[in-house]
Amino acid sequence: MNDCIFCKIVNGEIPSAKVFENEHVLAFMDISQVTKGHTLVIPKIHKENVFELTPEIARNLFEVVPAIANALKQEFEPAGLNTINNNGELAGQTVFHYHMHLIPRYGKGDGLGVVWKNNQSDYTPQLLQEMAANIAKKL
Amino acid sequence: MNDCIFCKIVNGEIPSAKVFENEHVLAFMDISQVTKGHTLVIPKIHKENVFELTPEIARNLFEVVPAIANALKQEFEPAGLNTINNNGELAGQTVFHYHMHLIPRYGKGDGLGVVWKNNQSDYTPQLLQEMAANIAKKL
Repeated sequence: MNDCIFCKIVNGEIPSAKVFENEHVLAFMDISQVTKGHTLVIPKIHKENVFELTPEIARNLFEVVPAIANALKQEFEPAGLNTINNNGELAGQTVFHYHMHLIPRYGKGDGLGVVWKNNQSDYTPQLLQEMAANIAKKL
Repeated sequence: MNDCIFCKIVNGEIPSAKVFENEHVLAFMDISQVTKGHTLVIPKIHKENVFELTPEIARNLFEVVPAIANALKQEFEPAGLNTINNNGELAGQTVFHYHMHLIPRYGKGDGLGVVWKNNQSDYTPQLLQEMAANIAKKL
């Protein structure tokens, strides 16, 4: 897409620190480096978000992620690693070309903070069954 | 694996609210429902984390994710959606069978909070190039 910064990286119009590249996928260092080793994996074809990925694009993208995660583990020896993908501005998306963040984790205060609220008490098993059935109808 | 709660869900020993199932993958409602519609996607085979996924398991898992994300979008009409996977206790992993969280987002205070520190000033383009080259050597 014309104005997409990640398409320009794919096309070589903007430089990047490339970690991996094949026919379908590019992986490169996130310039913000939320933590040391923070890497992005993107499809070369312009797709805005997870909703726009075809099954084939999804397959080709994620098949390379375990190897990249293992390379990050070997190189930086983190205590853990998160993969995160944001879809929609409200979810934290800032570049509207699908990207999966691989973020090595080193300890509290390492640059990424995730807070999970547990709302289990609001959802009975019966309610979850109804919700699951309704989602499944949309598939 | 014997003591794995997700393997027991796969085997039907423990009930779950199933959203989708095929030969390779199971998707079901997370009982904690961090936000409404919070769904987990797991490989049926026991793999502890992203580091243990083979390319084939990864392909089979992620190819179903866009359709499930779209079903969640249709059913709950969220403003956004995050996919998150935690590897290692320090990264927030609590069940040691790989799972990808699909978390619809509705607004601030909806149950998920993610704080991203931008450390761009600590990393020159030259340093990022060196890091990328070192990671690529491990691939």
